[in-house]
Amino acid sequence: MNNKNYFLTKAQENFPQLYYRKLIPDIKTFNADTGDSVILDLGEHAVGHFTFRFDNQDDFVDAPVRLVIKFGEDMYEIERDFSTYEPGLSKTWLQEEIINLDFPQEVTMPRRYSCRYIKITVDFTPFPITFTDFYFTASTSADTSLLQSIKNEDPLLEKIDTVATDTLKECMQTFFEDGPKRDRRLWIGDLRLEALTNYYTFKNYEIVKRCLYLFAAGDLNDLGFLPSFIYETPYYFSGHANIADYALLYVVSVCDYYEHTGDISVVNDLLDLCKGQLDSFEKLLDENLIVIPQDGWFSFIDWCPGLSGLTALQGVYLYTLERFSALLKKIGDETYIKYSELLKKVRTASKTHLFDKSKNAFINYLDKGQLSVHSHVWMILGGAIDGDEAKNILLASLENSEAKQPCTPYMRHYVTEAMFKLGMKDEAIEYIKKFWGGMVEKGADTFWEAYIPENPDFSPYDDRLINSLCHAWSCTPSYFIRKYQL
Amino acid sequence: MNNKNYFLTKAQENFPQLYYRKLIPDIKTFNADTGDSVILDLGEHAVGHFTFRFDNQDDFVDAPVRLVIKFGEDMYEIERDFSTYEPGLSKTWLQEEIINLDFPQEVTMPRRYSCRYIKITVDFTPFPITFTDFYFTASTSADTSLLQSIKNEDPLLEKIDTVATDTLKECMQTFFEDGPKRDRRLWIGDLRLEALTNYYTFKNYEIVKRCLYLFAAGDLNDLGFLPSFIYETPYYFSGHANIADYALLYVVSVCDYYEHTGDISVVNDLLDLCKGQLDSFEKLLDENLIVIPQDGWFSFIDWCPGLSGLTALQGVYLYTLERFSALLKKIGDETYIKYSELLKKVRTASKTHLFDKSKNAFINYLDKGQLSVHSHVWMILGGAIDGDEAKNILLASLENSEAKQPCTPYMRHYVTEAMFKLGMKDEAIEYIKKFWGGMVEKGADTFWEAYIPENPDFSPYDDRLINSLCHAWSCTPSYFIRKYQL
Repeated sequence: MNNKNYFLTKAQENFPQLYYRKLIPDIKTFNADTGDSVILDLGEHAVGHFTFRFDNQDDFVDAPVRLVIKFGEDMYEIERDFSTYEPGLSKTWLQEEIINLDFPQEVTMPRRYSCRYIKITVDFTPFPITFTDFYFTASTSADTSLLQSIKNEDPLLEKIDTVATDTLKECMQTFFEDGPKRDRRLWIGDLRLEALTNYYTFKNYEIVKRCLYLFAAGDLNDLGFLPSFIYETPYYFSGHANIADYALLYVVSVCDYYEHTGDISVVNDLLDLCKGQLDSFEKLLDENLIVIPQDGWFSFIDWCPGLSGLTALQGVYLYTLERFSALLKKIGDETYIKYSELLKKVRTASKTHLFDKSKNAFINYLDKGQLSVHSHVWMILGGAIDGDEAKNILLASLENSEAKQPCTPYMRHYVTEAMFKLGMKDEAIEYIKKFWGGMVEKGADTFWEAYIPENPDFSPYDDRLINSLCHAWSCTPSYFIRKYQL
Repeated sequence: MNNKNYFLTKAQENFPQLYYRKLIPDIKTFNADTGDSVILDLGEHAVGHFTFRFDNQDDFVDAPVRLVIKFGEDMYEIERDFSTYEPGLSKTWLQEEIINLDFPQEVTMPRRYSCRYIKITVDFTPFPITFTDFYFTASTSADTSLLQSIKNEDPLLEKIDTVATDTLKECMQTFFEDGPKRDRRLWIGDLRLEALTNYYTFKNYEIVKRCLYLFAAGDLNDLGFLPSFIYETPYYFSGHANIADYALLYVVSVCDYYEHTGDISVVNDLLDLCKGQLDSFEKLLDENLIVIPQDGWFSFIDWCPGLSGLTALQGVYLYTLERFSALLKKIGDETYIKYSELLKKVRTASKTHLFDKSKNAFINYLDKGQLSVHSHVWMILGGAIDGDEAKNILLASLENSEAKQPCTPYMRHYVTEAMFKLGMKDEAIEYIKKFWGGMVEKGADTFWEAYIPENPDFSPYDDRLINSLCHAWSCTPSYFIRKYQL
């Protein structure tokens, strides 16, 4: 068996069990004629399949009934006319179907939806009809019976934890999805944050293992980097993008996995691949040991318009080197020395070449004018600065209106992680309550892909209609709340 | 077991076997991007389910693909924009679906369609895709292996026979449908003509039996008449219309069935019901023994705008009395005397009160001004006139531009039947060739619900888009061609 088949076999062996629940919406019966509509509320966010029955009233519906059925993660999606959407992303991710039904029947719609609200509009019926037996079969691979409830004296933190675990639960299907409303695609960046939160909540180690193997089976690009995403339905497909920071965070995810499971067999399977990611990255460094862009890769860091992410990427590299060399040391792999020595050199070089003393800030290597929170967060996580110096610089950058600020909950996670690393527990709690608590106060059932408190309509894709309102990378408050017992 | 359950059980016992064929369209592969479309040609009319596969080309289709799939019985339906349709009948009978597909897959569309052409338009795909493995699973309960081919020295008659048997085959599903493009509903008027043609072609006696029992299970109206149509999917439903001529033709259908099968058990089951139809009809007669309209019923006779059908209906009554009294006599039921005596009296009365000597024509009882072919055809079939007198009157009415002319192939059948009754074989052949042959010359794969040679766009529903192009009541040329060995 070649490596790819071996990894795919391991991924399949760890196919998670799915748990199903039947959700009954608030409305039980709906009598309708042409033009009528009803909005059903499941009472919570759910991922799965919708079933309903319709029947004749007095006379037989002697022609097909045409229904427009719309699924919304919030009421904004239900109320907005989808024809006004200007992509942005593909319009077909907006969840709406037009179906024709020949005669009275129970209908289970074949596609999976991600929603709390369902709107049924009768576009045409020849005679009045009655809808009954609405239900939604929700699925997840999170075993909710394993979730320990927490009591927090701060009700907002308790609510944030509930919404965060719900977010993770919804994204846990046959793998860690990023957001169930759109593509069924596994991204490294989401995987890492979902796995972290999962270790403190549903403890489903199989799904993490499965995801790690799914990436291991992917095609490396010319630079040696893993694909940043893969598909598994209807067949395995290795994504055509190789984001440098994601390739590094894969290595971190393996370190996290070992830290929480002690499962050496998986580490042994993936060790060469991890080394390869770091060795490939090393080749991108210039003579100053600073990463410079090359054809065939790009960095993500954050959905932040105009962000120059190179300094942050350098920080991700440091962070990965530190985690990986520690793992190697722990498992008795002597190559750890190489990586830890490299770490020291690159850390020093980073401070030397990327820190502008006159500004008391990290700058971008090629675009020296740009200041960003991102650079500081990752230089802190990478250990280039520490202690009060780091703390002051981080706070200054968060307050500097000229510095690029985090846009996504994904980047906000790393801001929070940096705060905890620096012992800034109070600031971290305040940050979580302000940011994730802001979504809760706006009625979020699950945490959103994108949220900017000052600009609630923000979308990385120009139209908030397409935003995912249940997004894996936003689930980490439960990780912080439970790990640090906030 | 009550009567209804007994009849439904008998209907179910005679559920016909369905025969399936896999039709492969002319085009095998279609590479498409957003906006592209393809038209597949099955090469023949078919009723059934459509299957296709689509797959990625180079990159994975990372968002749902939206297709518009249209099914047309002819190219007019394919080319016409359905949004321009002005009902008429329910718009949902126009065969078009909008479907969203999450990832590459084989798709078998859940609904049944009636078509020769299939147009697929890619409304949206994120990346180019490839369609392959198109096929259409056609169904019929006609066992085509039982169909004897005929050789006719007139190629047009041979072609008409082929198109007619194809028409019947397509309408033979789990019962005798009237036209598979629209409602799945069994009408008495279609049943009678389909059964007649079936006796000379596919000889499927079970399906006739099934249909007779399905009506027998129906709810009689206050006047005692059978429902004119019934539904059987998804459950039995007795139609809310009771057309007087259809109630009579049910009795004729039982007579036809016995004539072709000699199956006395079915006749015994249905005899009381048949007597009831005639006895109920008798109560509608006035003191002159002429039928007059009452609340709760109407007559069909033909889709002919402005037609006053009472005289024709009187003829249907005579026709039924004659057939039914003959059946009773044959099976030794002495009540035949009552019906045959009634026949004589009503026949005489019909000539006395409905025939206008000055016009040398049958007139309508209440609307004396109206002349129609319909009145003459049914008075001939009912035996009110005969011989050269009848022949001359029939020909005169067919040539009289002021007389209402037949509109549907259904009524044209009875015109032809009247001609054969009067020994007008040459005229009948000419009539068949002109009318049904006209459809053949216009490219018909199956015979149409409505056709007026002088007005090819005629529709009983104001828009030919909704016309059924494969309609059971148009299949009887094969009955004539094979019965009379034309």
